[in-house]
Amino acid sequence: MSQDTITLPAAADFHLHLRQDEMMRMVTPMVSKGGVSLAYIMYINSKSRQPNLRPPISNTDQALAYKKELEQLAPNVTFYMTLYLSPELTIEEIRKASKAGIAGVKSYPRGVTTNSDGGIENYEVYYPIFKAMEEEGMVLNLHGEIPSDAESDICVMNAEERFLPQLEKLHNAFPNLKIVLEHATSKAAVELVKRLGDTVGCTITVHHLQLIVDDWAGQPHHFCKPVAKYPHDRSALQEVVSSGHPRFFLGTDSAPHPKGTKETSCAHAGVFTTPLVLPYLAQIFDSLGCLDKLENFACHFGKSFYGLSQKPEFENATVTLARTGSELVVPDEFHISQDGQPSSLGTVVPFWAGKPLGWQIVKDF
Amino acid sequence: MSQDTITLPAAADFHLHLRQDEMMRMVTPMVSKGGVSLAYIMYINSKSRQPNLRPPISNTDQALAYKKELEQLAPNVTFYMTLYLSPELTIEEIRKASKAGIAGVKSYPRGVTTNSDGGIENYEVYYPIFKAMEEEGMVLNLHGEIPSDAESDICVMNAEERFLPQLEKLHNAFPNLKIVLEHATSKAAVELVKRLGDTVGCTITVHHLQLIVDDWAGQPHHFCKPVAKYPHDRSALQEVVSSGHPRFFLGTDSAPHPKGTKETSCAHAGVFTTPLVLPYLAQIFDSLGCLDKLENFACHFGKSFYGLSQKPEFENATVTLARTGSELVVPDEFHISQDGQPSSLGTVVPFWAGKPLGWQIVKDF
Repeated sequence: MSQDTITLPAAADFHLHLRQDEMMRMVTPMVSKGGVSLAYIMYINSKSRQPNLRPPISNTDQALAYKKELEQLAPNVTFYMTLYLSPELTIEEIRKASKAGIAGVKSYPRGVTTNSDGGIENYEVYYPIFKAMEEEGMVLNLHGEIPSDAESDICVMNAEERFLPQLEKLHNAFPNLKIVLEHATSKAAVELVKRLGDTVGCTITVHHLQLIVDDWAGQPHHFCKPVAKYPHDRSALQEVVSSGHPRFFLGTDSAPHPKGTKETSCAHAGVFTTPLVLPYLAQIFDSLGCLDKLENFACHFGKSFYGLSQKPEFENATVTLARTGSELVVPDEFHISQDGQPSSLGTVVPFWAGKPLGWQIVKDF
Repeated sequence: MSQDTITLPAAADFHLHLRQDEMMRMVTPMVSKGGVSLAYIMYINSKSRQPNLRPPISNTDQALAYKKELEQLAPNVTFYMTLYLSPELTIEEIRKASKAGIAGVKSYPRGVTTNSDGGIENYEVYYPIFKAMEEEGMVLNLHGEIPSDAESDICVMNAEERFLPQLEKLHNAFPNLKIVLEHATSKAAVELVKRLGDTVGCTITVHHLQLIVDDWAGQPHHFCKPVAKYPHDRSALQEVVSSGHPRFFLGTDSAPHPKGTKETSCAHAGVFTTPLVLPYLAQIFDSLGCLDKLENFACHFGKSFYGLSQKPEFENATVTLARTGSELVVPDEFHISQDGQPSSLGTVVPFWAGKPLGWQIVKDF
């Protein structure tokens, strides 16, 4: 008999972009609407080519200031912050960050995403930093893609698989360093993470459980980095979450972009899932016949891997989802304004816009 | 010493979409502007979801009526027509078409492109038709993609490679039937066509000589079917044209779409190259160091394979191209109107819009 409601602890999203300014003020209160009470925040990378774009967060003070802004917008969410791995990052800063509760450091291989020119290609220059992180128990978050390079036959379809030897090398060099391969998209990535030791985890997004390459061919709202891959890659992601493997957990990589920067000649990369994280996941896990695995994937495995928890007053927060029938559809768009009213900044189109959604949150926290 | 001008016969485009109505009236006169005097026309598939879309051309009378419209718009171009392969097509119609100068029959595997639901999956039902075509010397034009099917791990990235056994089977069954694999995109396709007999040819588009998967990720004006693939696939296409292989020749698959149907949530597939075919090709062949191979690829190999020629008065038409320096750029867009003036139908964005073009036509025909 199929289950018609499900109650689970408020979820933890271990990879989230909340932007800045008006977009941040619009998106941040949506985190709890999606059923999430713990959010691990990646650096501000609006990818929106604004002239006054803030630099990536590379020190503790910047991270704490940003955290404070987010907390004011969503007091019912517990935020954990990252620093951006760059040559400016010092061992002293790592010690300071750790004491201040910064949970991890995010690495972008050079050139893979917008504004990552300060990223890296050779990790060995960072070994002293990684050693300090290992000692402090901080997590290294890897955007696992090698920059495209036609000479070497590297393109968006194999950039992740080509990166994987770097992950294995880092794990061998720092077996006690917690490393998370972010937003995995390939069977090869799933297999490697499974094979490596207990200090290697992996986030999986909502959208990569659903999409393949066909879905972003000409469809900018499904275009993200890393791109969704072959059906067999999606199957590997679906199988590992269905199996309840404890080192694979939720990190949405939800990344809002104004509609005008998506439906254009050169779309920005990112899929927006924040307002409906748990409903999307319930529908997907339901369709995979593994609703019983949703709670661990969305609520427990990530916190266990990181050793993090919600603020005490939200420790026991729960969310209840119920089947909707087929009447409920995902909104076509959200206005970029704090009050939900039309705005000169336009709108953001969410994942599955206009499509029926089989589950909804009927009790939040 | 690099060559600064090149004079060659007016080119032959063996795969061209010219649409209907106002789009047709805008695009058709551009054929000769791009340096092309012989055009092999694929059926009307506007992909534009118009309510009054004409059906595919499936009989001789429709094809000849359409040819007449095109000839009135571009009297300096010689048009050859195709029929659309469908269960309605009879052996009698093949005989009639052949007598009327219809040069070939186009097949779309079921479901691959818009409006191809009448397409096919199992070719054996068409064997009597193919036998008649073989006897008449008509050409079978194959859109070589298997429909995507997640269960079988088939998606836009491997749909062509998965189709290739069908091509080989057809060639073995009808060794004297001329077959063209249209708009090849993969190394596997190039290798198979090379391996098969002299009755198997292959068209290559302008854009597939230039693009890889990264280029259509989020960039709708580079999105077409079949999609551009890996760098090693592009290399295979570049190498076979650089080698001067006589069974690989120009078929642009140029397919204009209104800008509004490209820069949207679900873009139509197609790249528009008609107005600048020879300048694009000169730049590409120049960059590959094989300008000396351009004439055979663009002007002779296709006509030899088909056994077709221009109308007598254009037999000796020539085009001269010259290097531009770097001042010339591809127009951002073309208005959908016969006089080039702004129109309520919007614009079409050409390939390489706004980018410098190293060659231009300085004398046409």
